[in-house]
This record gives sequence, C-alpha cells and structure tokens, in this order.
Amino acid sequence: MTGVSTNPFDDDHFHEECAIFGIYGTPESSVHTALGLHALQHRGQEASGIVSFDGKDFHAHRGVGHVGENFDANSAPMQALKGHIAIGHNRYSTTGPSEVRNIQPFSSELAFGGFALAHNGNLTNAARLRASLVETGSLFQSSTDTEIIVHLVARSHQQGVSNRLIDALKQIEGAYSLVCIADDMLIGVRDPHGVRPLVLGKRDDAYVLSSETCGLDIVGAEFVRDLLPGEMVVIDKTGITSIMPFQEQPSRFCIFEYIYFARPDSILEGRGVYHARKSIGAELATESHVDADLVVPVPDSGLPAAIGYAQAANIPFELGIIRNHYIGRTFIQPTQKGRTDSVKMKHNANSSAVAGKRVILVDDSIVRGTTSRKIVLMMRAAGATEVHMRIASPPTINPCFYGVDTPDKDQLIAAQMSVDDIAKEIGVDSLSFISIDGLYRAMGEARRDPDCPQFCDACFTGDYPIKLATGLSAKRVSHGVIN
Amino acid sequence: MTGVSTNPFDDDHFHEECAIFGIYGTPESSVHTALGLHALQHRGQEASGIVSFDGKDFHAHRGVGHVGENFDANSAPMQALKGHIAIGHNRYSTTGPSEVRNIQPFSSELAFGGFALAHNGNLTNAARLRASLVETGSLFQSSTDTEIIVHLVARSHQQGVSNRLIDALKQIEGAYSLVCIADDMLIGVRDPHGVRPLVLGKRDDAYVLSSETCGLDIVGAEFVRDLLPGEMVVIDKTGITSIMPFQEQPSRFCIFEYIYFARPDSILEGRGVYHARKSIGAELATESHVDADLVVPVPDSGLPAAIGYAQAANIPFELGIIRNHYIGRTFIQPTQKGRTDSVKMKHNANSSAVAGKRVILVDDSIVRGTTSRKIVLMMRAAGATEVHMRIASPPTINPCFYGVDTPDKDQLIAAQMSVDDIAKEIGVDSLSFISIDGLYRAMGEARRDPDCPQFCDACFTGDYPIKLATGLSAKRVSHGVIN
Amino acid sequence: MTGVSTNPFDDDHFHEECAIFGIYGTPESSVHTALGLHALQHRGQEASGIVSFDGKDFHAHRGVGHVGENFDANSAPMQALKGHIAIGHNRYSTTGPSEVRNIQPFSSELAFGGFALAHNGNLTNAARLRASLVETGSLFQSSTDTEIIVHLVARSHQQGVSNRLIDALKQIEGAYSLVCIADDMLIGVRDPHGVRPLVLGKRDDAYVLSSETCGLDIVGAEFVRDLLPGEMVVIDKTGITSIMPFQEQPSRFCIFEYIYFARPDSILEGRGVYHARKSIGAELATESHVDADLVVPVPDSGLPAAIGYAQAANIPFELGIIRNHYIGRTFIQPTQKGRTDSVKMKHNANSSAVAGKRVILVDDSIVRGTTSRKIVLMMRAAGATEVHMRIASPPTINPCFYGVDTPDKDQLIAAQMSVDDIAKEIGVDSLSFISIDGLYRAMGEARRDPDCPQFCDACFTGDYPIKLATGLSAKRVSHGVIN
Amino acid sequence: MTGVSTNPFDDDHFHEECAIFGIYGTPESSVHTALGLHALQHRGQEASGIVSFDGKDFHAHRGVGHVGENFDANSAPMQALKGHIAIGHNRYSTTGPSEVRNIQPFSSELAFGGFALAHNGNLTNAARLRASLVETGSLFQSSTDTEIIVHLVARSHQQGVSNRLIDALKQIEGAYSLVCIADDMLIGVRDPHGVRPLVLGKRDDAYVLSSETCGLDIVGAEFVRDLLPGEMVVIDKTGITSIMPFQEQPSRFCIFEYIYFARPDSILEGRGVYHARKSIGAELATESHVDADLVVPVPDSGLPAAIGYAQAANIPFELGIIRNHYIGRTFIQPTQKGRTDSVKMKHNANSSAVAGKRVILVDDSIVRGTTSRKIVLMMRAAGATEVHMRIASPPTINPCFYGVDTPDKDQLIAAQMSVDDIAKEIGVDSLSFISIDGLYRAMGEARRDPDCPQFCDACFTGDYPIKLATGLSAKRVSHGVIN
Repeated sequence: MTGVSTNPFDDDHFHEECAIFGIYGTPESSVHTALGLHALQHRGQEASGIVSFDGKDFHAHRGVGHVGENFDANSAPMQALKGHIAIGHNRYSTTGPSEVRNIQPFSSELAFGGFALAHNGNLTNAARLRASLVETGSLFQSSTDTEIIVHLVARSHQQGVSNRLIDALKQIEGAYSLVCIADDMLIGVRDPHGVRPLVLGKRDDAYVLSSETCGLDIVGAEFVRDLLPGEMVVIDKTGITSIMPFQEQPSRFCIFEYIYFARPDSILEGRGVYHARKSIGAELATESHVDADLVVPVPDSGLPAAIGYAQAANIPFELGIIRNHYIGRTFIQPTQKGRTDSVKMKHNANSSAVAGKRVILVDDSIVRGTTSRKIVLMMRAAGATEVHMRIASPPTINPCFYGVDTPDKDQLIAAQMSVDDIAKEIGVDSLSFISIDGLYRAMGEARRDPDCPQFCDACFTGDYPIKLATGLSAKRVSHGVIN
Repeated sequence: MTGVSTNPFDDDHFHEECAIFGIYGTPESSVHTALGLHALQHRGQEASGIVSFDGKDFHAHRGVGHVGENFDANSAPMQALKGHIAIGHNRYSTTGPSEVRNIQPFSSELAFGGFALAHNGNLTNAARLRASLVETGSLFQSSTDTEIIVHLVARSHQQGVSNRLIDALKQIEGAYSLVCIADDMLIGVRDPHGVRPLVLGKRDDAYVLSSETCGLDIVGAEFVRDLLPGEMVVIDKTGITSIMPFQEQPSRFCIFEYIYFARPDSILEGRGVYHARKSIGAELATESHVDADLVVPVPDSGLPAAIGYAQAANIPFELGIIRNHYIGRTFIQPTQKGRTDSVKMKHNANSSAVAGKRVILVDDSIVRGTTSRKIVLMMRAAGATEVHMRIASPPTINPCFYGVDTPDKDQLIAAQMSVDDIAKEIGVDSLSFISIDGLYRAMGEARRDPDCPQFCDACFTGDYPIKLATGLSAKRVSHGVIN
Repeated sequence: MTGVSTNPFDDDHFHEECAIFGIYGTPESSVHTALGLHALQHRGQEASGIVSFDGKDFHAHRGVGHVGENFDANSAPMQALKGHIAIGHNRYSTTGPSEVRNIQPFSSELAFGGFALAHNGNLTNAARLRASLVETGSLFQSSTDTEIIVHLVARSHQQGVSNRLIDALKQIEGAYSLVCIADDMLIGVRDPHGVRPLVLGKRDDAYVLSSETCGLDIVGAEFVRDLLPGEMVVIDKTGITSIMPFQEQPSRFCIFEYIYFARPDSILEGRGVYHARKSIGAELATESHVDADLVVPVPDSGLPAAIGYAQAANIPFELGIIRNHYIGRTFIQPTQKGRTDSVKMKHNANSSAVAGKRVILVDDSIVRGTTSRKIVLMMRAAGATEVHMRIASPPTINPCFYGVDTPDKDQLIAAQMSVDDIAKEIGVDSLSFISIDGLYRAMGEARRDPDCPQFCDACFTGDYPIKLATGLSAKRVSHGVIN
Repeated sequence: MTGVSTNPFDDDHFHEECAIFGIYGTPESSVHTALGLHALQHRGQEASGIVSFDGKDFHAHRGVGHVGENFDANSAPMQALKGHIAIGHNRYSTTGPSEVRNIQPFSSELAFGGFALAHNGNLTNAARLRASLVETGSLFQSSTDTEIIVHLVARSHQQGVSNRLIDALKQIEGAYSLVCIADDMLIGVRDPHGVRPLVLGKRDDAYVLSSETCGLDIVGAEFVRDLLPGEMVVIDKTGITSIMPFQEQPSRFCIFEYIYFARPDSILEGRGVYHARKSIGAELATESHVDADLVVPVPDSGLPAAIGYAQAANIPFELGIIRNHYIGRTFIQPTQKGRTDSVKMKHNANSSAVAGKRVILVDDSIVRGTTSRKIVLMMRAAGATEVHMRIASPPTINPCFYGVDTPDKDQLIAAQMSVDDIAKEIGVDSLSFISIDGLYRAMGEARRDPDCPQFCDACFTGDYPIKLATGLSAKRVSHGVIN
C-alpha cells in the first residue's frame, strides 16, 4: 500500500513538513476536513489524520498515504468520524516510513477531558523540553514536537483549556501554526512571528481554519482573514474570540511559501501566490536578461515564474518539458548503470518544441542541483542550442529549523560553490538567481530591511528570527525514533 | 488497493483504450517494457501486463492499477520476467473492475509453441467471429478482442507463425496496432488504414515498438519511423523484415490522437503533437476571435492549444485554473447534495488571476458538457466578468468503434443540441468549436478531402473508414463479460 | 495473505488432492456450497472456488487460501453468487503457489451456453489428450486436467449436454468424481471403477452431491446413497435421473480413504470411517502385540486406530503427544541449525504422561519417515523407556496416479528399505505395519482377492486398476504450468 | 487479514487473557520468543508483540493475529528484532478489534532509559490509579493496565530500575505475572498470591521465563522451577537474583488453569495439567456414576477428563464428536434463520459411533450453556439413545477479575438456575458437575480449606482473595477505549 503513495523527494526541493485544517459548526466536519486536507496535500504527502468531536466523544482515524487513500467517505472509519468539530493534518516525514503513532493530530485524554492537537512547524527547544518532561515521569508515545505541547498542557496548573494551552505555548520556542479541539472548542494559534501561515474562513455558520486559502475554496468557505502573528482564536458555540497572549514580535512570514510551498491559487498575507511568482519571474527577467527563443518552465513549480519571465522579456513561453504525472520511481532497475535515471520517470523533453532553439529554463530553486543537471542534459539531447537557467529564488545556503525539510548545509550546492561553478556543474550556458532585494521587490517591498527583515529568509541569509538551540545552526535536529 | 488507482473518467473526455510496447534484443527487455508502459500510461490506466520470452520459456505478470504499482523492478514477479524479448500493454477498461484474465498481453501455448499478443484497437466483426469460434469448440477465457485473434492463429492451417498471423488478420475487420512474441520473434502490425499509431525505434542493437514516441524516449531509443498502414514487421536475430500482406488502403490515421490522446511530447506520422495542438489553437484564434484579457487553459489537456491561441491572438496566457494532481474522487460524501462536486477535487479557480477579467477558456473537446459547466461556474464565482469558451476540436457527434471509449450518441451534447444551446447550457458568453477544415489546416492540409479524408474523423463527421457490423452505428458494442 | 493459509505438508502424509460439492434447488445454494467445502477442507487447503447459476447467469468466485478466508457470507463476492444451483471445489496444489486460473470449478461459455465443472481425481491420458487438442487449435487457460474435459465437451458433436459430457468422458482415462452445471442441471459422475468417493444427499427439496458425508451433515442434508462406480446422475427441475453410460468395471474404491483421507465422521460405501480405523487398530493389535504401558496416538490422524488398538490390547490409551493447532511453520529460523525443528511447531511430548513408561505409538502411515523419527526422539527425551511403533497401513511403496499427492518412489522409505531398517532409521524398539490381508479383514473382507481386489490398493501392491500412460509407472506426472 | 485470525469465542468458555514470555542470554532471543509465544497461543490469540534489546537499542514489532502470521523469521520486522534479551506477549482482547497501541509489550523511554513490560493478569485498582495519574499530567497511549505500571515506574522517586518497579508494584492491587526489560536486565515477577503462573527455565546459558512449561519445551529449555508467589527474579550478565519484595501472602493459584486454561502438556506448580484433568475426570466418575455405553469428550478441551472418566468408570472412550480445525465462523449466512449454526462449523457428530448408544458427554465447564445445548441436540440427531453430561468443574457462578475474560454474572447459566434446570435447558438425561471438594481431591488435597483455600476458586465460590474496587463484585470492569 505504501508503495503506491509517494513523495517526489527526488525533485530536489525544500519541502513543507505539514498542513493543518480545522472546522467548527457543521455535522459534516470530518468530510470537510478530508476535503481541506486533500487541497493541502502538497504540504505533506506521507500520512494524514483526522480527529472529530461530537459533543461527547472524540473519534480518530490516521493512515499512511494520501488523503484520498485513507478517507474514503464510504469507508467505516470515515463514517465513524462524527461530530460538529474536526481537525486534520497532513504529514511529510523525514524519518523513514511514517509510524502510525507519529501521525497527527495527536489526541489524548487529559484531566479536563479529551484534547486533540495538530501542528505545522518545528520547535527549536524540543530536545530540552522533552528531556525535562521524561526526567519527571512523562511517557512519550511519539517522536513529534506536537506531543511535547500536549504534555505541557497536561502538566499545566492553569485553569481552563485556553489558559493551559497558553501556559504551554509560552514554554516553547520555534515556529508553529496549530489547531486543537478541547472542551467543545476549536482553537487556532500562530506563533508570535507568524512564520507559518494559518487562515480563517467561514462557510455558512461554520468557522474554518486552514494552512492556505485553497483549503477554504474546496469546501466552499469564504476567506475572512489571516490569523495575526501570535494570535489565538477560540471558536465555540458563542462564536469566535481573538486573544493575543504573547509579547508582540515583528512579523517574519516565511518567504519560501511564495516561492514554492504554497499552492499558486492560494492567497496568503494579502498576496496571491500565483501573482507573487509571476512578479518574481518578471523581476528575474529584468535582472538577468539574455537573448533566447523560448522560455521553458521546469514543471510544474516553475510555471508561474516562467510565465512572468516570458511576459516581461517578451519571449515566447513554451512547454519544452512534458511531465508524466503517473508515479514511476519504484520500477527503476538498480542494475541499469544509470542509463535510465529517475528524472526520465517524470520529465521528457518536448523535442519538436526545443530543437534548434535557445532556451531559458525557469525553475523556482536549486537545492542539490542533481535534477537541474539532468534536465539541462535532456534539453541539449533534444537539440536546444543554448540553455540558460534562471532561478526564481536567491541561492539557498542555510537549512531551515522552522518546519521545512532541508538538507544539511554540506548538501546545499549553493553553500558549497559559486554561481559560476554551479553553472558549470549543471552544464548551462548561463545561470542567474534572483537577488535578495529583487525578491523583496517582487513582494512589493522597496527592498529588504536588514535591521528587521519583512520576512523570514534565513535559508538565503542565515538571519534566523527565532533563537536556535545550541548546535542547531551547524546541523539540523534529528527527530529520532523510539524503536 | 484498487481504490487507490484511478481513471479521471469524470473529466468528460474520450479515452484511448490501450497502449502497446515491445522490445527485442536486450537482457533487460522487461524493465524497458515497464518504462515504456509508464511513459504510455495516459493511454490506459486500469491495468497493465508484460510477457517476456527468454529463448525457452515465456514469463508473464499482470496487475490491476498503474504500471508503477505492479512492476517494481525489485519485486519477485518483475525479476522473473527474464528474456531478450518482451511486450507490454496498458488497459483502459470500460466494463467495471478489470478482471485479471482480461489484462493483456494474452498468452497461450499453441501447437507451434508459446504465443503472446497485445492489441490496441477494436474489431468491428468481433461478435460474429467469436460466436463462430465458440460454435466449433473454442473456449474463451477472456472477453477481449485480442483472444479472438489468438484463436484464429491457433486454428490456422498455414505454416509458420507469420503466415498464421496474416491468415488470422485477414479474417478480422477493425482498427488495430499489435505486437506479439512467437517463435523467438517480435512482430508488430498496423491495420490497413493505420488508424492507431505504432512507431519503431532502435536502442543500441535492440528494436523497439511503441504506441508513441514518448515510449522510445524514456528507454533512450532513437526514433526510426512510423510503421506504415498495413505493415507487418518481423524482428528476429537476423534483423528486421517488413511485409505488406494486405491490400493497400488509404491511410486514415485517427485525428483525435493529435487533439487529445497522444502525449504532447510525442511525434506521430511526422507531426509533433505539441506543435499540432498549438496550431489548432492558433487556427481557432483566427476563426473565432473575441476581445478578452486572458487566455486560460483548462488543465492539463488544454494547455498547448491555449498557448497557441494566446500567441496568435496576442492576449496574455495565464494559469487561471489550478489543478490538484492528487487523487481525491473517492472521498466525496454522497450525501452532500452536490455542494462539493467532483470538479473541485481536481480544479480550483486562481481567483487572484481571473477576478475582474474577461477570460477565454480553451479546452480540447466537449463530450457531455458536465465538467465545462462547472468550470465556467467556478470562473464566474472567482470574479471573471466574461467567460468565452473555445474548443480545439469540432463538435463530437458520433461514437468511435475503433478502440476509443466514447459515450453513446445520446450522451454527446453536441449530437443533441446546437452550439448556441450548448453555450447556454454551460453558461458561457460565447462558444466556438474549430471548424473541420480549420482542423485540417492546422494539420498542414489545405482542407479536408471529402472523397478520401486524410484522417479518420468519424467522431466529427460520421464518415467511418472501416465498415461496421450491423447495428454498430446505432449503439456501441458492449464487450460483455463471462461471469 | 497466502502466508497465513497453510498445508501441513511437513507431516509426512499422502494428500488427497481435491474435494467437490454441488447442490441443486435452494436459493442459498452458494452458502451451502461454502459450508460443504468448509467441511471438506481437509481434502484440499490451497484454494477454493464456487460457481453458481441463477437460471440465467453464471457467477464465480475463486480464492487462494481456506474456504473461511474467501467465502465470508457478508462479502460482496459471496453475495453475488446467486442462484439455485452451485458447485464448489477445494484444491490441493502440488505445483507451487496456486494460480487463480488453476482454481476450480472451471467455467466457460460453450456453444450451448455456460458450463462449469469441478473434478476430484487425475486423468492418466491427460498429456496425450492435451497435446492433441492444442494441435487442432484449442487454447488452454490452465494446467488442470479438468479443462481437458471441458474442451472435449466443447468439441463434441453429440446433441445435448449430457451426451456431450458422456462423449467427452469416454475419451478420458483415470480416476475422477465430478460435478458440473449446464443447461439448468446439476450433474454428478463417478469413474467406472469408483476410485474416488461421491455421495448423494437431500435437504428438503434440494439435492446435494459431496465428496464425503460430512459435507452433507454440515448443511443438514440427509444421506441418500453413494453414487455407483460409473454412474452419472442428472438433477434438474423434474428430479433426479441416473444413467450408467460406461461399460461396467469392477469397483476399486481407494482404500486409503479409510486409512487417512476421509474425515472420521464420514460414512463411505457403507462403512463408517471412524469404525474402519478402529478396526484396523484392533487388527493391528492382534497381529503385532507387544507388552507396554500406554497406547499413544500420533495426533490427530492416529487417534481412531490408537483407540481401537488400546481397546483390543487392553492397554490404557493416553494423549502422550499434544498437538498445537495454531500454524507455526513460517517462523522457524533457517539459521538455527536444526535445533528447533518443524515437528516442535505442532507437537509436544506430554512428559508427565510418558515418563518412565513403555509406549506404543500408533500412526496411520509412514511416507518419508522424517516426522516419525522426530516424534520417537521426542518420546525418548520425555522419558519413555520403550517406544514401539504400529502403523495402521501396509508399507506404502508405490506412488498414486489417481488424484493423490505422493512423492516419487525413491522418496518412499518403505520402497527403499526393509521394515527392520526403517525401525532402526526412526529409532524404535519395534515396528510393525498391518498386513495387507489384515487391512482387508478390518474392512470386513475375508482377505484380499488377488485376482480382483475389492479396493484400489496400488500404493501398497502396485496393482493399478486403470492403465497408466507410458512412463507413468516410473515417475509421477508433473502437471506442468504454462508460465 | 484480520478475518483470517480467529478466536473460538463461540465455544462458551472462560478465556485466559494473556501469555508472557522472556529470554535472556542468546543472540536468537526474538526467535525463541516467537516460538514460545506460538506454544502459548492458546492463552491469547488476538494479537502478539515482541520487544528485544541488543545492549544499546530496543526493537519492537506488534501485530494483530496469530504469532505465525506476524513473526515470520524471514520477514524484515523479525530480523530487526536483534538482541540478547527479548520479551513477548499474546493478547486476548475483550473490546473489539485490538488496536495496535494496546498490543503488549508496552515499551517507552523513561528517564533512566528504555523500559519494556508485558503483563498477564488484571489490576483491581486500575481505574483509581489511572484517574490519579491523568489528574497530575500523565498522558495515556493505551487502555491497558500495563501502562499504569509503566507510568508508576516513570514517576517513582526510587533509585534503580528494580526499586522503581517494586515501588510501582506496591501501589497496584490485582493479579499479575509480568516480564520486563530495562537496564540490560530481564525481570520477572508474580503477584503476592501467585494467581497467574510463571515458570523459569534454562537453555544452555540463557534464562527463560514463560507462562507455562510448554513455552520452555518448544525452545528446548529445561524447567528449573515455578516463580514463587510474590517473587521477583532479576536476570543479568551476572546471573539470576531472587527478591521477595512484598509482604508474604497465602498462595492462591488459579485452579481454572488446571481445568481449562493451561495446555495439557504443561506442568504448573508441580502438577501435570493432563494428569490433573484425568484425575478430575476420575473423581467425577466416582461422584456421579451413570450406566452408559460410551464416554465421549467434547473436543478438544474435554479429552483428558473424558479419558480419566472412562478409565475410572471402565466404559469405552470414543470420539463421538469430530472437530473441524479449520476456521469457518465468518461465512455463516446471517439470513439463514439459525438452521446452520456456528457449532456445526466446528463440530460434527460421529454418527456411526454414537447411533443407538447411551452416551456420557464430558466437558470441562459450562458458561452460558448455548454450545452444550447444540451439542446435545447433535448427539440425539445422530441416534444417541441417552445423553448424560458430566462437567469437570463446579458450576461457574461468579466473574473473574484477575485476568480472565468471563461474562457478567447474569449471563452465567449456573448463576441463574439450578443444576436440574440447566439439565432441562440443555436437554440431557442427567447432568452433574464435580463438587468443589471433589475438585480439590483431584488436585491431591484432602478437601478445600474454607478458611484459607489452597487455590483461587472465586469463580465457583465467590471467595475473592484480592480485594475488589467498589462496584467490581457486581459487574466486571470495562477496560474502555480512548477513541
């Protein structure tokens, strides 16, 4: 079964680690949550879970694989997910096959009753908190950061779920957006810097929380607003209440959401993601013009930037690479001595379009550079006379510690060599990345404010807005697995 | 497990029923065949099979689902597919869940030894042949046309496999491309009108046969040529031999291969499919100009035509609809009274791109019209001020009997109402289909030759090049299933 | 899944290859057939199939594994098995993992309509018939003898199903009991020598055919009579008709059915199987008395003979070996250097019962002798002071060609060495087999009639009642598999 | 898959809830544990788990179904269970489908390192302890009593694992035998009354702990001794240490282990189980003699008592009921109006043995009486002229709270009606249960000591040796499930 589900790990990208979704106020809460998670599948493809609450009991179902594999509306588990509140989570796993116990939402019975939590982000003081909890007798059942928050809530001496949750969140450091169910309430929170997204919508009388607006669209909910950095919203039968429990911090929304993570049809923090990508492409065309016959996107993530580039440069946009959307990674013969590589499972040159042409390839980012090299080779084999690569992000030279799966620094090609050397390595005639200020211009800012950057851009600049545990800057934390 | 695999039946298209692939002359014949079938997955997504021959024994593996699910190179069944010859088949089933016995290639032990056959197309005299064979004592194990051919070969009194196969083919009527293994040979055949495609490639010393050139590309084979209509090629250790066993007929290649079936990166009968689609789009722009702000493709099949249209009309091309490539059909709640429809599982309006804009939607065809209506509604809900629909094919008013899955005539919207009425039905401000002569112009012809059309275009014109069994013109043949 | 089902191959026995069951005249025909097959599971544990007929359509379901795994009454396949007639088959496979296409009943559409057949036995002229059918254009879809019969029926020029079936059966040689559905009839046949059993029962208005009477008991049917050797019964809405289409032959019922194959609660050819086994035990006690403290059965097949022995010898009967009925073969570590052998997965000495005692072990037969040796060792390790083995059959020195799975002659220990040498090999203080005449006495005969033996006892005597194809006497026929 | 595994719930017995096994000192510790669990499968058939420790890491595998289904020695999970220490557990679930998180051993990372625990028994103060732990911030991941013990160990302020475990055990009340791994040690404990069994064995240098001696036999270990009531043994590289940490209590070993739970080849507390059962049968023959022709055991559990009865009464022992060991419960048609009942799936009358005979049926116990009635009917239908039932235990009139699955009192037939009324209800000519003193005599005691009974016999007498939580005596505790 797990052989069927897939993660396009081989496509050389950073990966968002999670999606969250929650809804309050409809008897079909779990179906809507499944739909929302389906729309947010790109943020986590390894496993999914839904927990619902019917006013009396909690119901849960979790499964490895895509949402569509595990939450068939006609299946018994799905029909058991009764209730007017539900939350859900898509997981992207970095540590081998997802164990079921690591699939969120995490649910448990606390002293005040049931509690279910789903979390997108990463705690930077997780190891220390966990050690301290274990030392004083807490038993962990998963290796997730999420469970740390639940233990802190369980241990809190505050009265009331909201206060206990605030008490717990004040002890954690890191980036997070979260949704939880407790005491007949749906609660949503964004961390004080607002690194990860969380939006609020309304569908008839029901309130919806979703990582992105595309999760609202699929259930027919209207967008209300983004949650503010550091905001907690508590939704119950009396309506919605907003609380600002933390000391105010400057907003540092993850700029990579615009570059790659979010779906192009989502609107985050007031910006349409498609529009943002086209603007980056246009800015890139201005910064690094080159004469060519075609602008070709690396599918599918490079499309909007390529369209923006082509329009700005007035060069024809063409589909010079065709993507096979079926999953083929598993049947590559290991003994084939590399002649049929994994890139061919997904991409093929559209030779009748590129033969004899000077081609500008537009991609969103380069991480290890392995895929880029193969695609360039493919273009040349198809008869392209020149291949120029334009990248819709600055060089990625630092790992992320805020909920994104990134390789260690020594595997980031841009951290290891100059742009010229990368150009040679991947075999292009020219290579340009957008400048950091160009990126900010595409976002509608005059430039990056070095004293207080308008976004989290640590992967490009190393300027981490939230302090890291000792040793974190050198190497990413392994989440570990209790065997 | 089968719940996971999918066919996007709901997207209101005709569907090619099969892909075939064969290779002679490499010890990795079955791995290459799996790769080829993966590249040809769009022609049949229900089930796949591979048969190989190692000079002594035949080996077979068949499975319901995608190629990637069934032909993992590390699996025991795949490793058992030894040999220097292999053929493979992707099946698109019209009759409920594919039974394993209906999955091709069909293999059997005949008097002269093992015989394996895979077939793309449809026999128009199948019912009569089958009845006659059963009457005289043949046992059928499947409901496929393919088995009819094998029985005819088994019954033939000719000497030698090629002669027996020719003897059998002379008794059948219909459209077919086929590959078979027998007597240490790989044989490929196209029917006398060449309705379905079949191309020849070469990879080092190995010969490759594939429904489309994208199947050659993935295995690194070079394109040699299309097989001719009515040609049989016999490949063995002495090389390749071409035979023209049938009376010559005018070529009637299926024009819908260019419109929708084939992959855009394939080159068939000397035309690049991507280029052909762009030309149709351009021709469409000329024929049915309308003032608008954006040209928006209905993804993914409308993309090339939309690019051609936008370039010809000089209107910006934008991704106004975003497609979710994950499979979500299965978890739609049946009790939801249609509020969340199946189109939303796959498509979402890119509202920041289309709001306030006059939009030209470009799609390849309209079959029942159900999807079109929902997409138009979606555009309007996202704020489009005008929605014009342009279709890159003439109205489809007749079913196909040559290997394509089409609804009966009474379900074809264009067979039931005028273009104006369709426009009202799907809710657009204007609607145009390309003219039949415009379509031929896009193919590089001056116009359609009504006396001897250059292509099979029966779905548009009702001009069927191969005679139909009595009753076929009224209703499509049901293939039936022996329970 | 197949790992779960099991055949106790390791227990060193001959194995019956099949069970058949059929019922006419109840709307719950398939449920009764599933029940009957469950009661007959001991005759075939690898795979099962049921075909039903509802007056219009045939319905089939087949599965690898036990009946209980594949025919859950609440499952969709089972509920689709509608109709007033059903036949079923349990298969015991000798050639690797059962392929679904080899699972009976075999069903096909012949010129006169649907035809389904299930068969217990083995054809001795199968290879010749098959070759001749293939030569003249028949396609085989399985490697079963059963399909040969169906082809012969399909080719017959006789009128009417019964006549065609008789025509076909006159061409075959071998042992068979069979049930079939055709033309709204249930037909049952036993071969002219009546080698394999087939009994007739009645349940209200429904007629039942079953390999053994235990299949009647479970569905609440009353035993009517055994079919006669060479008899065909045709059951339809007018009732039951008996036909004797073959030249009369002397009855040669398989004597091993009494020794081991049949269930002890079955009654075959007028003899209760339990009673027959007790009589053999009693005869054995008379023939080969030895002083001892306990009579211990090798479970479970040795129980009735041991009870008979103990009662005749007036020595206490004790359960000195305890059988674990759970399946444990699969988790034996191959690297354990034989210290934990497969016998321990199933048997353990009851040491408190046997320690310090002189033990008579009673088993039904010895084939290879491997298990016997381990059990004797186990008895001695548990403290038995003497171990005497008594075998409730004569030495098995010849393979069976009539539907029983037996090793080749060179693996039959009794064909390779004397009784004294076997005793040494398996480590007993004394060993006796019942004499062939003693066996016949236990069956109620005065002695074996050497001119025309009352039973088929070829495995003991080499006196094969049905002629074997050339070469068969030297080596058993491999059934072969079309890959 | 779960459909394949089975519990013979329908056979109207009390059921032991668990088996435990542990081994220290062999590199094949997990294979031996799998073998031991296989031998102990009768004590828990729903799910199994093994945890091993290799000196550095813990490894775990758990699965629903039989040991043989989940612990194939060649499977990847099994090969990952490395180490010189392993413990294992078979689970018998009373609350629907076993969730994986409830499958023992329970393993967790405590402040001092990994800790794994498997437990046979039941805590009588579980609800109170659990509530208190949750109140103070503990998160529970299962609904097992076992986890309570682990939380208490995690919370203990004692130094050293043994002391922490003792500290935890002093807080619990109930019956338990347990094995655990921590700090490179294997620890075994029996509760102060020694209600549940636990034996110590030795295999070369390795120490083995097992619920019964049959678990020692299968791995070739020699029996050393039973653990004493209240004894803790700590096994590490220095050898074995015995500790008696609790205040001494009178031994109250569960007498039902001899009647039904334990395997007949096990030896517990110095008594061979087979011998004990035969003695009960003999005592029963003395107490309640009746003239009859046959003694027939209800298979399989009634066999030893029936043999004892037959020998004492000098009446022939016969297999009058034949058991089908294949699993058939799942395919009973619910709509069959009871005509084919579940008893027929497992049992059939051996009619040739019982027809015309006066039969004494010997069974070990009667719980609800439903099965007994059907078996008596079956005997009469097969022609038995008289049916007398003799039960090898006193009437069961109270539920068990010490780790045995029993119905509530209102479902215990003997708690609801007199012996005469039961006889009428189940339709026998006479019915006798062994007397409580007769049972003690069979155990070798002069009689039951009412002041301090030598065994726990609360299910017969209501004399519960360990105090029950309020409300427990009225109704069994539901273990509950956190959804």
